[in-house]
Amino acid sequence: MKHFLGIEAIDDMHLWVREARDLKKDPAAYSHLGKNKTLGLLFFNNSLRTRMSTQKAAFNLGLNALVMNVGQDGWSLEFEDNVIMNGESAEHIKEAAGVLGQYCDLIGVRAFAGLKDKEKDEKDRVLNALATYSGIPVINMESTLGHPLQALADAITIDENKIVERPKVVLSWAPHPRALPHAVPHSFVRMIQQITADLVITHPEGYELDPGVTQNTTIEYDQEKALKDADFVYVKNWSSYSQYGKVLSQDTSWMMTREKLGTANFMHCLPVRRNVVVSGEVLEGNKSLVMQQANNRTYAAQLVLKKLLGS
Amino acid sequence: MKHFLGIEAIDDMHLWVREARDLKKDPAAYSHLGKNKTLGLLFFNNSLRTRMSTQKAAFNLGLNALVMNVGQDGWSLEFEDNVIMNGESAEHIKEAAGVLGQYCDLIGVRAFAGLKDKEKDEKDRVLNALATYSGIPVINMESTLGHPLQALADAITIDENKIVERPKVVLSWAPHPRALPHAVPHSFVRMIQQITADLVITHPEGYELDPGVTQNTTIEYDQEKALKDADFVYVKNWSSYSQYGKVLSQDTSWMMTREKLGTANFMHCLPVRRNVVVSGEVLEGNKSLVMQQANNRTYAAQLVLKKLLGS
Amino acid sequence: MKHFLGIEAIDDMHLWVREARDLKKDPAAYSHLGKNKTLGLLFFNNSLRTRMSTQKAAFNLGLNALVMNVGQDGWSLEFEDNVIMNGESAEHIKEAAGVLGQYCDLIGVRAFAGLKDKEKDEKDRVLNALATYSGIPVINMESTLGHPLQALADAITIDENKIVERPKVVLSWAPHPRALPHAVPHSFVRMIQQITADLVITHPEGYELDPGVTQNTTIEYDQEKALKDADFVYVKNWSSYSQYGKVLSQDTSWMMTREKLGTANFMHCLPVRRNVVVSGEVLEGNKSLVMQQANNRTYAAQLVLKKLLGS
Repeated sequence: MKHFLGIEAIDDMHLWVREARDLKKDPAAYSHLGKNKTLGLLFFNNSLRTRMSTQKAAFNLGLNALVMNVGQDGWSLEFEDNVIMNGESAEHIKEAAGVLGQYCDLIGVRAFAGLKDKEKDEKDRVLNALATYSGIPVINMESTLGHPLQALADAITIDENKIVERPKVVLSWAPHPRALPHAVPHSFVRMIQQITADLVITHPEGYELDPGVTQNTTIEYDQEKALKDADFVYVKNWSSYSQYGKVLSQDTSWMMTREKLGTANFMHCLPVRRNVVVSGEVLEGNKSLVMQQANNRTYAAQLVLKKLLGS
Repeated sequence: MKHFLGIEAIDDMHLWVREARDLKKDPAAYSHLGKNKTLGLLFFNNSLRTRMSTQKAAFNLGLNALVMNVGQDGWSLEFEDNVIMNGESAEHIKEAAGVLGQYCDLIGVRAFAGLKDKEKDEKDRVLNALATYSGIPVINMESTLGHPLQALADAITIDENKIVERPKVVLSWAPHPRALPHAVPHSFVRMIQQITADLVITHPEGYELDPGVTQNTTIEYDQEKALKDADFVYVKNWSSYSQYGKVLSQDTSWMMTREKLGTANFMHCLPVRRNVVVSGEVLEGNKSLVMQQANNRTYAAQLVLKKLLGS
Repeated sequence: MKHFLGIEAIDDMHLWVREARDLKKDPAAYSHLGKNKTLGLLFFNNSLRTRMSTQKAAFNLGLNALVMNVGQDGWSLEFEDNVIMNGESAEHIKEAAGVLGQYCDLIGVRAFAGLKDKEKDEKDRVLNALATYSGIPVINMESTLGHPLQALADAITIDENKIVERPKVVLSWAPHPRALPHAVPHSFVRMIQQITADLVITHPEGYELDPGVTQNTTIEYDQEKALKDADFVYVKNWSSYSQYGKVLSQDTSWMMTREKLGTANFMHCLPVRRNVVVSGEVLEGNKSLVMQQANNRTYAAQLVLKKLLGS
């Protein structure tokens, strides 16, 4: 593995989950692996879990982590080729990436979708520019196209909690006051496709995810039907993909409630809006796995860092 | 001690001061105590001394410190129970605290009073929510209700400089262009009540501190009378407590001067406005203890961290 | 050496370059020199290379680095003497510096020229106030008057790439949409004056640098003539020094191109505006030393830190 840019970097999901669970049992076991090595963490967007869990993972491996909030600490960056840089941008990503590649041994980056221009977003240009120009392994800490560290943490969490060989997993859309990106649901769907599970996606019409991602996954527009006999219910808002970045519905009846959830496990990547996406009761209830998911972010990141350090 | 939320966490002020002074003599003596442990530092407000001295204290104990500027780095947080989160706040403190509690072994938090709504401020909700929901020891780095690390540093400084068994300590209000919180004077008063000292508080009428804090402490509205024969003069501005958060006076005659100070030691927690709160002459004079107070912040923090790590 | 405030702190440029190149061969050789010591890094302005390379240098020496973005993390500072601080500034640099000097063993500071008031800028007051009041060694990470870490990195880079005993070095002004400070060209000129090289400076009339810096260095207003037979071409924009801070020309014909560069090496301190200051072709071409310059920032910083720790 040269980079960790997307879920497709995981060659064997079952094996990775097993390895991550082993790390979790003894997080300091590889504390000398990162000796004299530096991990740069570039944030183009806000972050709580990713910021803290990735630094924690680096610490567990003895890595020196340097955090940079790109917008506020550094220079505004240019991404277009052949542009005459006489506007706002003070530095081209080619130079910034090349420079960072000399100071760091590994680099993690967070850069969300803008949700204005689908074609531009699909290029995932911050992530890819760093992978192209830094000359060092790059880790996706949520990009336009995916959030593979979250999906890996989710895979660990499902593995830790499943009681049947082949659980039924439901990805259920939820309302939200803002337009949110597709990175989390897309990576989640790709991850579930790699484990032993039956996936059903449910959402109002118009909220279909990228068909290139969902492929032949079952889509059920009736939430109640979709949720029947579910073992895990992953709730998440996303904006329309076909009417790119639009909020088509804020239908509160899609909010997850205890009645709808039944005996299934509840999952969400956080941050979550209480009583909009899910009732507080479910979130704090004994079937909620959200804290475990967040905790597993550390071991997902640690496994990825360990693999990149070893290669 | 489960948390360090306020000055009342200090069970024996004389003993703590002695222990802190011992740490100061050999700051690296416990450098392995924090091995493989992480301290999260959450700043909802600006900080220079607290930010640097607490990180320094963590370093002295071998602790990994992760700093988070909550507003700018993370998500805007919700604190109300049972709210429908369809407004500005993206994450509830319950989830944020629970998540942080999994990444960290200890957590420090700074969250000032808003000074708009007394009832709300008195709940000290950021500090208390973290203590309730994080599941790990929480350290107050100045909250609505108190600044106990400052008060402990002040106790150390008084102990280092007192030449009589029972010094006279005067807390003297000073003018300031802005409305400031009561955390520092309240913790200072509570601290002095636990040491061997005579305390007099002096301020213009209308600036009475919380009577639940001052109790039967002498209040003298005539600054000159109050300062007579003082050994230590602690100067500080605060806004009105009864007319909550109001600036009732900017009377420049309350500024501390060399003439007023006489032979007493001058103390202030910093930052301080020169020639408004105190003359530059006093601040830089040979009776000024402000640098020593700031330095003792490191050992106050280090003692608290050491105790929480040990328990 | 007590501080590293400017290029004049370098007593023997050839020796320093040799020492820095030795460090580069084995960056971890002195990893115990910084044990139990803390470097404070104060940023009043944005930074990518300086922020990351100085932290990397500290890491290589085993130093604990504490980063502070002064404006956003701390308090707004006052620099004037004898001022009545009833305006915006909450803390005087005298106290801030004194406090930081107690928490840190070394302090680095970045504070750019304002370019509004020459007399004020020439006092380099942030840098000098820290040197005066902190009581600890201070490192210039680019101040009003100079950027000596950059100049030292440039000296290393020239040494690594020169193929003649006495290379011809040309400092060539370039257009830029904004008014930029003189710190980089001034320190570059001072540095070249200390090595074995012939320096020619070229720029449009009105862009003469400080004559106290350039002294009897050749100034050639005809860029083509200046560039003839150059071994190294250092391209940089700066605003007018005589008409202080003014942009007098944006003449695009001064942009560096492959044709003009010929067989010379291209240098720039970065960040750089592509196709305004220099063509993308030159920047990415095989004569471009910009990545090597940026990489050498780590070893320049590491040498300075090592010397200050040793003294």
